[in-house]
Amino acid sequence: MTVTLLRNDVFAEEVTAALLVIGDEILSGRTKDKNIGYVAEHCTEIGIRLREVRIVPDDEAAIIAALDTLRAAYTYVFTTGGIGPTHDDITADAIAKAFNASIDVDPRAVAVLRERYAEADLTPARLRMARIPEGAELIENSVSKAPGFMIGNVIVMAGIPAIMQAMLQAVTPRLRKGAKLLSYSIRVNAPEGFVAGPLRDCQRAFPDVAMGSYPFSEDGRYGTHLVLRSIDEALLKQAKADLISRLPPDINFSE
Amino acid sequence: MTVTLLRNDVFAEEVTAALLVIGDEILSGRTKDKNIGYVAEHCTEIGIRLREVRIVPDDEAAIIAALDTLRAAYTYVFTTGGIGPTHDDITADAIAKAFNASIDVDPRAVAVLRERYAEADLTPARLRMARIPEGAELIENSVSKAPGFMIGNVIVMAGIPAIMQAMLQAVTPRLRKGAKLLSYSIRVNAPEGFVAGPLRDCQRAFPDVAMGSYPFSEDGRYGTHLVLRSIDEALLKQAKADLISRLPPDINFSE
Repeated sequence: MTVTLLRNDVFAEEVTAALLVIGDEILSGRTKDKNIGYVAEHCTEIGIRLREVRIVPDDEAAIIAALDTLRAAYTYVFTTGGIGPTHDDITADAIAKAFNASIDVDPRAVAVLRERYAEADLTPARLRMARIPEGAELIENSVSKAPGFMIGNVIVMAGIPAIMQAMLQAVTPRLRKGAKLLSYSIRVNAPEGFVAGPLRDCQRAFPDVAMGSYPFSEDGRYGTHLVLRSIDEALLKQAKADLISRLPPDINFSE
Repeated sequence: MTVTLLRNDVFAEEVTAALLVIGDEILSGRTKDKNIGYVAEHCTEIGIRLREVRIVPDDEAAIIAALDTLRAAYTYVFTTGGIGPTHDDITADAIAKAFNASIDVDPRAVAVLRERYAEADLTPARLRMARIPEGAELIENSVSKAPGFMIGNVIVMAGIPAIMQAMLQAVTPRLRKGAKLLSYSIRVNAPEGFVAGPLRDCQRAFPDVAMGSYPFSEDGRYGTHLVLRSIDEALLKQAKADLISRLPPDINFSE
């Protein structure tokens, strides 16, 4: 657990997370991931620092190795993918194995599936989606019922974006949150090379503010977004004023 | 190095890769990654198996730790991001450190930058983009000149998608390629739960063909793509015929 010293001498706990994306189809390029950006933005909004993302195949050993590393290193690990009804959906079983927990069809999850499926449609394949490791808490799926779950510090969600988003919203009230990372962005109508010097000098003057430079091109012209980030709003305002004062006078910018 | 036994008893070397995405802005959600899907698809097309992706912040220790693990585990490691002109662009220096190589402004890279920039515009910030580890080979950047590089089995590319794509195309002829993974896709107009059984049985009959099931929803109806993958075309055709023969008669599918 990392502790960040705020300017007002209050210790704020830093809450961190990693995201583990599980699926052969992402690594083959067949499916384009749409969850990483969403989870990243959501974490930033609620004061959780997403520190690492890994994408691994539907392979038990690969899932367990990544999971064990990540759950030891960060406050939370989110996973997406591999909890559907087919034989290649092995996430729940791999996670049970990582936690050395037993896993079976969970009556709570079956009850949820019954809200959607008639008894005759509760095929063995569908009941696979009710396999939940012992000791896990269910996460509601308002889209298609089959639940996600949370075990220890690991939050297991579906890979389909609409369902993943519903599960992420559902689990959010249960998570600890840290100080929210604030950011200021300045848009400069000049390539990075013209603003790199001022940004570096500003970074030296404000070592506790994270500063980044993100080039873009628009209608064939290069521009740069300069972004300052801190959990301390007053410090951030000072850094921004300092940075603007350092920009060359012939450069246009907008906030 | 993994060796795969083909049906015709020829040993085909499997060429593997990992992708390391470097950048605070991806983890904060500010920038949405557009490179993972492109690299994944490109690798599949040229017969390289992308086995893992990691996203880490602009942090030297995090970059080096991930790089050292990945370059020991896979044939190639691609990196994207962190090779621009600003102080937060630390990828080249971190990679030099991982390889225990010296790094300095490289005359070959400066010569390339001179094709684009007048001498007066070769600011210290821009010369940062000419910092190349000792022993590395340059990778051409047909979009904006500042080159990528390859050192050992690590291919270092820009984060801006258009530039990354140009570098990936430029480096491709230098890479070893393995047997190309072929795939057949069957589109079924039924939810996963209805086809999970046939797919599982087909998988048991063809253990050497990788099989995946990818649900989708379209106009409020659920469907499933069933995908079979192998480097052996004849085996793949047999598996496909077998799978189709196992589908329930009332299910519509298209190839």
